[in-house]
Amino acid sequence: MFRKRHGPPGSAPATLVPHTVEGRANKPAIQVTAYDAGQLSERECSGIDGLPADIPSSGVTWINIDGLGDVDLLKGLGERFKLHPLALEDVLNTGQRPKIEHTPDCIFIVAQVVYQDGNRAFQVEQVSLFVGANFLITIQEEGEYDVFEPVRQRLRAGRGMIRSSGADYLAYALLDSIVDHYFPVLDDIGETVEDLEDSLLKKPSRDMVVSLHDYRRSLTHIRRFVWPLREVLSGLLHDGGGFVREPTRVFLRDCYDHVVQLMDLVESYKELTTGLTELYHSSVGLRTNEIMRVLTVITAIFIPLTFIVGIYGMNFATRTEDGAALPLNMPELHHPYGYVSVMALMCLIAVGQLLIFRKLRWL
Amino acid sequence: MFRKRHGPPGSAPATLVPHTVEGRANKPAIQVTAYDAGQLSERECSGIDGLPADIPSSGVTWINIDGLGDVDLLKGLGERFKLHPLALEDVLNTGQRPKIEHTPDCIFIVAQVVYQDGNRAFQVEQVSLFVGANFLITIQEEGEYDVFEPVRQRLRAGRGMIRSSGADYLAYALLDSIVDHYFPVLDDIGETVEDLEDSLLKKPSRDMVVSLHDYRRSLTHIRRFVWPLREVLSGLLHDGGGFVREPTRVFLRDCYDHVVQLMDLVESYKELTTGLTELYHSSVGLRTNEIMRVLTVITAIFIPLTFIVGIYGMNFATRTEDGAALPLNMPELHHPYGYVSVMALMCLIAVGQLLIFRKLRWL
Amino acid sequence: MFRKRHGPPGSAPATLVPHTVEGRANKPAIQVTAYDAGQLSERECSGIDGLPADIPSSGVTWINIDGLGDVDLLKGLGERFKLHPLALEDVLNTGQRPKIEHTPDCIFIVAQVVYQDGNRAFQVEQVSLFVGANFLITIQEEGEYDVFEPVRQRLRAGRGMIRSSGADYLAYALLDSIVDHYFPVLDDIGETVEDLEDSLLKKPSRDMVVSLHDYRRSLTHIRRFVWPLREVLSGLLHDGGGFVREPTRVFLRDCYDHVVQLMDLVESYKELTTGLTELYHSSVGLRTNEIMRVLTVITAIFIPLTFIVGIYGMNFATRTEDGAALPLNMPELHHPYGYVSVMALMCLIAVGQLLIFRKLRWL
Amino acid sequence: MFRKRHGPPGSAPATLVPHTVEGRANKPAIQVTAYDAGQLSERECSGIDGLPADIPSSGVTWINIDGLGDVDLLKGLGERFKLHPLALEDVLNTGQRPKIEHTPDCIFIVAQVVYQDGNRAFQVEQVSLFVGANFLITIQEEGEYDVFEPVRQRLRAGRGMIRSSGADYLAYALLDSIVDHYFPVLDDIGETVEDLEDSLLKKPSRDMVVSLHDYRRSLTHIRRFVWPLREVLSGLLHDGGGFVREPTRVFLRDCYDHVVQLMDLVESYKELTTGLTELYHSSVGLRTNEIMRVLTVITAIFIPLTFIVGIYGMNFATRTEDGAALPLNMPELHHPYGYVSVMALMCLIAVGQLLIFRKLRWL
Amino acid sequence: MFRKRHGPPGSAPATLVPHTVEGRANKPAIQVTAYDAGQLSERECSGIDGLPADIPSSGVTWINIDGLGDVDLLKGLGERFKLHPLALEDVLNTGQRPKIEHTPDCIFIVAQVVYQDGNRAFQVEQVSLFVGANFLITIQEEGEYDVFEPVRQRLRAGRGMIRSSGADYLAYALLDSIVDHYFPVLDDIGETVEDLEDSLLKKPSRDMVVSLHDYRRSLTHIRRFVWPLREVLSGLLHDGGGFVREPTRVFLRDCYDHVVQLMDLVESYKELTTGLTELYHSSVGLRTNEIMRVLTVITAIFIPLTFIVGIYGMNFATRTEDGAALPLNMPELHHPYGYVSVMALMCLIAVGQLLIFRKLRWL
Repeated sequence: MFRKRHGPPGSAPATLVPHTVEGRANKPAIQVTAYDAGQLSERECSGIDGLPADIPSSGVTWINIDGLGDVDLLKGLGERFKLHPLALEDVLNTGQRPKIEHTPDCIFIVAQVVYQDGNRAFQVEQVSLFVGANFLITIQEEGEYDVFEPVRQRLRAGRGMIRSSGADYLAYALLDSIVDHYFPVLDDIGETVEDLEDSLLKKPSRDMVVSLHDYRRSLTHIRRFVWPLREVLSGLLHDGGGFVREPTRVFLRDCYDHVVQLMDLVESYKELTTGLTELYHSSVGLRTNEIMRVLTVITAIFIPLTFIVGIYGMNFATRTEDGAALPLNMPELHHPYGYVSVMALMCLIAVGQLLIFRKLRWL
Repeated sequence: MFRKRHGPPGSAPATLVPHTVEGRANKPAIQVTAYDAGQLSERECSGIDGLPADIPSSGVTWINIDGLGDVDLLKGLGERFKLHPLALEDVLNTGQRPKIEHTPDCIFIVAQVVYQDGNRAFQVEQVSLFVGANFLITIQEEGEYDVFEPVRQRLRAGRGMIRSSGADYLAYALLDSIVDHYFPVLDDIGETVEDLEDSLLKKPSRDMVVSLHDYRRSLTHIRRFVWPLREVLSGLLHDGGGFVREPTRVFLRDCYDHVVQLMDLVESYKELTTGLTELYHSSVGLRTNEIMRVLTVITAIFIPLTFIVGIYGMNFATRTEDGAALPLNMPELHHPYGYVSVMALMCLIAVGQLLIFRKLRWL
Repeated sequence: MFRKRHGPPGSAPATLVPHTVEGRANKPAIQVTAYDAGQLSERECSGIDGLPADIPSSGVTWINIDGLGDVDLLKGLGERFKLHPLALEDVLNTGQRPKIEHTPDCIFIVAQVVYQDGNRAFQVEQVSLFVGANFLITIQEEGEYDVFEPVRQRLRAGRGMIRSSGADYLAYALLDSIVDHYFPVLDDIGETVEDLEDSLLKKPSRDMVVSLHDYRRSLTHIRRFVWPLREVLSGLLHDGGGFVREPTRVFLRDCYDHVVQLMDLVESYKELTTGLTELYHSSVGLRTNEIMRVLTVITAIFIPLTFIVGIYGMNFATRTEDGAALPLNMPELHHPYGYVSVMALMCLIAVGQLLIFRKLRWL
Repeated sequence: MFRKRHGPPGSAPATLVPHTVEGRANKPAIQVTAYDAGQLSERECSGIDGLPADIPSSGVTWINIDGLGDVDLLKGLGERFKLHPLALEDVLNTGQRPKIEHTPDCIFIVAQVVYQDGNRAFQVEQVSLFVGANFLITIQEEGEYDVFEPVRQRLRAGRGMIRSSGADYLAYALLDSIVDHYFPVLDDIGETVEDLEDSLLKKPSRDMVVSLHDYRRSLTHIRRFVWPLREVLSGLLHDGGGFVREPTRVFLRDCYDHVVQLMDLVESYKELTTGLTELYHSSVGLRTNEIMRVLTVITAIFIPLTFIVGIYGMNFATRTEDGAALPLNMPELHHPYGYVSVMALMCLIAVGQLLIFRKLRWL
Repeated sequence: MFRKRHGPPGSAPATLVPHTVEGRANKPAIQVTAYDAGQLSERECSGIDGLPADIPSSGVTWINIDGLGDVDLLKGLGERFKLHPLALEDVLNTGQRPKIEHTPDCIFIVAQVVYQDGNRAFQVEQVSLFVGANFLITIQEEGEYDVFEPVRQRLRAGRGMIRSSGADYLAYALLDSIVDHYFPVLDDIGETVEDLEDSLLKKPSRDMVVSLHDYRRSLTHIRRFVWPLREVLSGLLHDGGGFVREPTRVFLRDCYDHVVQLMDLVESYKELTTGLTELYHSSVGLRTNEIMRVLTVITAIFIPLTFIVGIYGMNFATRTEDGAALPLNMPELHHPYGYVSVMALMCLIAVGQLLIFRKLRWL
């Protein structure tokens, strides 16, 4: 998730390197959607030639390119729509920090989409937007999931103000969809972390710590993508460069609020995972302490007793080979109450120690 | 406490989804209170039709809606009082970060109330306020406790300046009540944490760590609700949008001060719980150390002694089967002072070790 | 130290609740001091009636009220000197964050005094100042120590510029005295913490950790009182509201510097206590490690030896009941050098282990 | 990596001390490159006399000095091109924090290059740039790797706008090369840290902790070099002092973005290494806990059993020397089921303990 | 190092208390240096009467006072050169936070010098400067080392611009000398900490932790002195109050850069010591873990074996006193292969355990 794609150090700026998936530079899919309040046309095309020669002055033209394998397409696009070569380099160098750039002909926006694939693994995809007066060009990394699909369906349905608004509203709708996709990701993290919290208190295991570490890491990444998004939206809101119309601003502000809430959630979850890691440490520390206590109590009671029984297992002879008495050698062994006394002594010692340990609050 | 309600990603802005409680979308309770310095009328109504068609130009009309189950009511309300659809979406998407929005017709405020229910569990409820020229609309989540009740009683009693002031003062009074409700919650956390501190020093247990963790988490949440409240009050104070009259401002400043004190308390309590967690770790670490010391001293004293008695429990024969003497096999066992010497040696070893351990400050 | 006094949530603003000490609302002591460069009169009075009806236009009148038990006195005072009811509420709700408020008739300042009582326990007292054109009203919590006494003595002595300056200089002198009282408190903390540091390195004990925790907590509180004091002094310095004369400003700046130094000290001591807590942990961790090493070395040496002597303590018969030889059963026991060889073997094992442990740097 | 070279305290400013490598002050290598859109000349010279007497007014002259051993060269250079003596002191005092200084005749920039040598050890080299109207002077520390080589090749190839632009674009290209060289360094750290993460979870070892510590330290250094670079680029971008032309600014902004991404990466990696250190602690703590559990279970089961078998190894006599019965001395030893009962009892104890430990979740 | 000298709380401002060294208030040494580009005169005098009555209008007069034992001298100085009494109080209350104050007649600067005495212990000395139009008064604490000596030698040598510049350049030269003295102190800390790092990895000991703690503490102090120095230099640079001439400003900026580098170094070293403390903890934790593993493996292998040999050391009788056979009592003891089988069994157990422990990666 960390890696930023970059060319070799010292290479010339605006060097475009095509993306390859499993060794192949796939041909991007291109969708051209033109609409106004009354009508909507959608078509797919396969290369730079299929693109409209010029943008109609009325309505909105949305060109969506899915895949980064065709450098010539991007170059042609850049020439036709006056996209800055450095911006195109950023499009290809995925892993960019989200940002906004103003050029005379359009606004260039980079953002990162995060979603969960079928195995609930987090996937990151870079999305680039060029917002012009009445066109919008979006360029996505090849991926299994299309974050723009809900917006496309709203366009087709034609409900709400999306069809009667300009390219700026369409850009807002796409950015809003990108932002909205972070919420279920964070919900999932939140739920899993809360599950972890429960099982942590029952029996801490190594797997939990690793999970916790993974979630913290994911949150670190998500934060890296969400924080600059706020700047992007703020930039769009406060300096629309002539491309953002007034009615769209209230929606952008709403989207900005969502980003602030995302940041809030990310920070809260980070704090929660930190708290859980500490809880885990406390928990393990206390368990170790309890185990030590049991070990110590058992050892402290039985080791002296084992020593005593060891004494009376010694084989000191009570008579020499010659039969002469050795009265100092273990006379206890021949005392009628020897065994009973030793057993009683050992009971006394054990009970005494138990009392001491109870007083020390070790039991 | 964390969750923010949100629609599916990519859905159109201002999509209103009704709240359900245990699967049912309850009909909200509506209270309409109209008052001026001289008189006060209160009535309940059950739908949009019961609401006043237009707001009388004199006096204050306060419409309080309790429950978020009826989307049509909110839509009707929005149309009649020109509330922005995005604001109504925020009303329904509970778990919002507190915020203030200015529209030409009113100021929209979202805040979160925190209180303790009967089981001393923390409850969060979202409260939305639309402050207009001479009306105030408040929309609360369904809940067991009504944070506005004390203000309603002051209105009925008619003491103080509340009846002779406008909708802005009423809004202030409600916000002040919301802010004031945080104090007993923090007092309760403070007291419990101090109790924890005492018992922690006596005997640390796992329950305490879990409690501590829970309180830190609650404080994290409360901070998320209190910090933005400051911006809300500051926004109301410095840009009242024509709805906030001068005499109300000194009260808003007072309320703002209370929020600052809340933030202060939350930070102090967070620091205290962090300190306690560390104290706990120190305490457990020291206990483990003490236990280890006892274990080590006992083991170190008795293990060598047990070894010695083990030696004299060996069965080496002093004569072969043929009766030939084996003088090197354990001659000590037949020495007249063998037993006494061994016992004396063991005493010496034990005393020596005790002296060493005392010198090492382990005893 | 944490608690902020506050009324029930939702109660009307500016509700005044008298303070009680051990259940009784004591009558406050009132001192009226009037002075100019030439003369000084001091008198005590017991209620609102004893106060001067109006403030003489020349000289300075200082009214000091000691105790918060008489709400009527405060109300009367408020009416006579036009003190804002919200300010009077703050006077009574002790535990306030230090703050400054400007009103047309005076500047209202709240600060917290910290001092050590006879048992070296830290005491906090709230002090409120109303600084007018030629009067100063100070209201203190009832307490065993009067932080204003040194200033009163300087007034009586009449040295320096205090008698020839106005109420603003008197306010400065009192604030300076409040600020100065923090230094010995911090000195005491510093000395004790340094003592702790020494004994920590000798033998860590639970008492030290608790002390350390207590001092960190006290420092947290002191920081809560000192940081806002800076804002208070800065407010007085940069916006004196017409009440602060130019010559007083250089003294206020000096006092402001003292507050900055206090903050500096508090932060340094906090860092020191944090460092000590860590040192403590390191120290305990290392002790545990040393103890474990001793335990392990002793156990590792003697447990195998005890096993060996245990082997030769087994009672395997060398002949059956019938007298038939069982040559495989422990022939060593009848070997002439059996005992000597076993003893030698055990010495070898012990020496070998000692060498290994020395190589592992465990000894 | 930390050290900053500095003269003795109190020495006069602008004191120049030559660098020595292994005791020798090597003669620097000087390369003079003059180019415009049409042509390019490169030559090496060996001293101040070989340098051009004055800079041609058209085209760009780039003087690159490799090595800091010749103070007279620097002094001569300073006089000829009006470089400030304090700047020359900074050139020699390597280990400088990157900075930008404006003088009337040129802009002085210091930066630090970080790269990996053949053994993958990190190397730091200080690079100083003097950017004038149509000249650029660069001074590098002697080192095995030349970070400017890729730019020199682009100059020779003559592609792109580098040949047709001024000294400002050349300065940008060199700075961009410096910035770009940080990316592979961070990639390497990232990969190694991720490898560490995997092996940490398998078996934590001391080497890993040391590596982790080393990488954190390297990241600390890199941060020290990268953060001020942002200020340098921002300074160049916003106050070019008449030397930065408009078309170069968009490239500088791109380079600035790269620095921001570097900072982002450095912070992310620092957070990752911190997380790994914690993961390591958790992992070791848990392992210790598991080991303790095994130790305690084995000890707790076998110590009492060993005590019991010790009892029946005692040698209490059942008859006196005179043959009188001592019926209280260990009658169990002569019971027909004595051995079987003791064995059964011990099995019971062991099974009971196992059940207890399973219930305590220790197994 | 922490202590700030201060008078009793509530005492009048500008109260001057003389310093005593070992109970005596030593008479300060006074040096008067007057110079211009052409000539330089130095003389010592012993009291206020020896000082020049008025400052010559040409050239620079530098009065250096070494020692704080004579309050009358300071008072006289204050009157003659119009030094503010509060500034003189700051001169005596050593331990001040470095600061700059502007008065109409001069600029007052306080700074702290840190150097190592003969035993490499850190010493702190307060230095106060009063920078006037053509005079400079410096007041130092009594100390074994004079930080101004290198500057005095440069004055005498007359090289560079120091003799031909004004009092502002002299003040710069002294401040620069103060700043430069921090570098060797930090170098020494850096070297020692790096030595510590090496030995920490070999064998952690308590001494290292204490050293590390001491260095962190020293760094905390140094930071307290260096951070405000930046404000001092920035104040001098941006508001020279008419006393700082333009040519001096470039030198002050250079000095400011040095302070920024100092701050950078201090922060880096603090981070390094924090990292080392953590490394230490990791190291001790891992050692404890290793020791525990050895203990557990040895115990786990030998305790069960000792139990087994204990079984066959029991004395169950195989015949009653009457000679009747007790066939259930330990028949193994009379089996021809009993001993061999038990030995083989024990080998099997030991080998099995070794395999298990190897699988658990404990060996």
